[in-house]
Amino acid sequence: MKARGFAFEITARDGLARSARLVTPHGVIETPAFMPVATFGAVRGIAPDELERLGAQILLSNAYHLHERPGEDVVARAGGLHSFTGWGGPWLTDSGGFQVTSLAARAGIDEEGVTFRSPHDGRCRTLTPERAVEVQEKLGADVAMVLDECVSDDVVTPTLRARAAMERTLRWAERSLRARRRVDQALFGIVQGGCSAALRRMSARATGALGFDGHGLGGLGLGEESARREELIAAAQEELPENRPRYLMGLGRPTDLLQAIALGVDFFDCVIPTRNGRHGLLFTRSGTLGVRNARYRDDPSPPEEGCDCPTCSRYSRAYLRHLLHVNEALGARLTSVHNLRFYFRMLEDVRAAIRGHTFGALRANAADSRGGTP
Amino acid sequence: MKARGFAFEITARDGLARSARLVTPHGVIETPAFMPVATFGAVRGIAPDELERLGAQILLSNAYHLHERPGEDVVARAGGLHSFTGWGGPWLTDSGGFQVTSLAARAGIDEEGVTFRSPHDGRCRTLTPERAVEVQEKLGADVAMVLDECVSDDVVTPTLRARAAMERTLRWAERSLRARRRVDQALFGIVQGGCSAALRRMSARATGALGFDGHGLGGLGLGEESARREELIAAAQEELPENRPRYLMGLGRPTDLLQAIALGVDFFDCVIPTRNGRHGLLFTRSGTLGVRNARYRDDPSPPEEGCDCPTCSRYSRAYLRHLLHVNEALGARLTSVHNLRFYFRMLEDVRAAIRGHTFGALRANAADSRGGTP
Repeated sequence: MKARGFAFEITARDGLARSARLVTPHGVIETPAFMPVATFGAVRGIAPDELERLGAQILLSNAYHLHERPGEDVVARAGGLHSFTGWGGPWLTDSGGFQVTSLAARAGIDEEGVTFRSPHDGRCRTLTPERAVEVQEKLGADVAMVLDECVSDDVVTPTLRARAAMERTLRWAERSLRARRRVDQALFGIVQGGCSAALRRMSARATGALGFDGHGLGGLGLGEESARREELIAAAQEELPENRPRYLMGLGRPTDLLQAIALGVDFFDCVIPTRNGRHGLLFTRSGTLGVRNARYRDDPSPPEEGCDCPTCSRYSRAYLRHLLHVNEALGARLTSVHNLRFYFRMLEDVRAAIRGHTFGALRANAADSRGGTP
Repeated sequence: MKARGFAFEITARDGLARSARLVTPHGVIETPAFMPVATFGAVRGIAPDELERLGAQILLSNAYHLHERPGEDVVARAGGLHSFTGWGGPWLTDSGGFQVTSLAARAGIDEEGVTFRSPHDGRCRTLTPERAVEVQEKLGADVAMVLDECVSDDVVTPTLRARAAMERTLRWAERSLRARRRVDQALFGIVQGGCSAALRRMSARATGALGFDGHGLGGLGLGEESARREELIAAAQEELPENRPRYLMGLGRPTDLLQAIALGVDFFDCVIPTRNGRHGLLFTRSGTLGVRNARYRDDPSPPEEGCDCPTCSRYSRAYLRHLLHVNEALGARLTSVHNLRFYFRMLEDVRAAIRGHTFGALRANAADSRGGTP
């Protein structure tokens, strides 16, 4: 990696799956790693010291949302995201490309960039590749993402439209690299290409040749079937430089993570653990549990037997059900804590399995116990 | 005190102010003490282990709200509030008298009890003194409160109406004592009497003679002036048994607490620290701070210099302002944590001052630094 203070070292392999250490100026991340989503610089209701204890290694925030509020200059004057938020470990910021280019009705996209009406104050904003880099350099995350054009509802997107977006994303990638000023921030390119494996392959080969510090896989998880997604991820992975981190953007369920890890993906982010938690959907090793259900009214058991999280060690399903029913903020917090711990623990198990060459068995067991496709 | 497992021992005096130890089956409370409000069995967004670390000794919940959801039988089957909620220390439950009798338009009050339409499901409910005792015995708090008739907007209440409510509260108090079944739960009577010192005195004398384990002062903080309230509290205190705990219900601001402590009050509860926190109003020793204000946009200082709370040790005014502006749940949580710690620390200082016979100076300094009336 070219950015100063960074290194990426693959420490174990099991088939295409791999475990690595990403060294950043704010700490070392063991991969495969899951990044909790802190859209506005905080994981909903969860404090940084709790995230540390749960096993979080890196948080993801959103440059577009932070640009709107409080503004990147406020964050910069506070010394960047690390000192502004109280999470001093590694940060990654997304450019906001997904948010602004997928708001199709509100956005106008041309070669220069994206013009859109802010849902916050109704004013028009223009986001260009250069501006996305500038905003993220001010926010000061360890890893920044380029502005990409994400074609929404990829399943039915004609290849022509997907090809145009992929090619524009590539031109924007080159502009992003030229706009770069900071040497202590990693910049990741993004692979697009809709639902075409051929386009994904072209995008990965061309993006990979530009010299980014790592690569994101964008525009996935938008409705395509699991088997198709597997093919698209595999096509991109074969073309991407082996010695750089790979990040599947915005996905997903535990089975989605295991599928991508089997293909060599290193990083993930998703709102599922926290959002599902707020809605009372708890992940357990034997499947999901809808804790608002009447059947748990008198259930004194913890959400998941054998779980080491603070929620499972102190609270019952009956109490969580009650808190969610009366809209008590502590309920959303305790369920989010459990789900985050479920994800972190799953990835701890995955890393151990890759080291022990048992990742295939872990994945098969997980699929069996959840009754889902692997 | 008559309830089994309880003792109340006054350990220091400074004028009328006093510091005591209340022994309960679930722990010892040093008074004067502040009880955070956990309406539905949780302090909004704050976990029991955090409350312990902040210095909470006893929590207050509301029998009326818990009766509605999840129902006292659910709590009883879970082993009572202590095991249902994860807060294993002392609990006090209010009967709900204030909530149902002050909902004047929705409630019909007669000698039997209060009939009201539930704001939750629109159905009619009847709450009697006996039922209030039964519900609270099932909830299993360490301290239960009798059902009282609270006349709303006391300032303009004619004495006749205040007298009738006070006398009914007294008859209900006798019925509550007869309805009592548990021997391991303390039961407190409640002094009423509107804005008349003579009525307050009569109520305190008669209630105090009934043999309750302690006494609440109800129907205050409803708009009366501070000097009037001082007179009303003093009148009641002179008539109440000296050797039983005294609890000023629902009040209030720091200066309200200091005023009542000077008159010999031992217990307090109020939503102010948490509710003000959620609205961005922070208590500090040099006055309140509205952290949403634009002037704090770039302020890297903690909410209060020298504060030992988790919020002040890790977060800036600028970050709290941002979190509150984007309605991030962590913001309400961090501000509530600071305000609760402010209250607990103030009462720690008060107890030390009573022991050292410097309470008068503490109160005068607090008034000076806040520029308010003592």
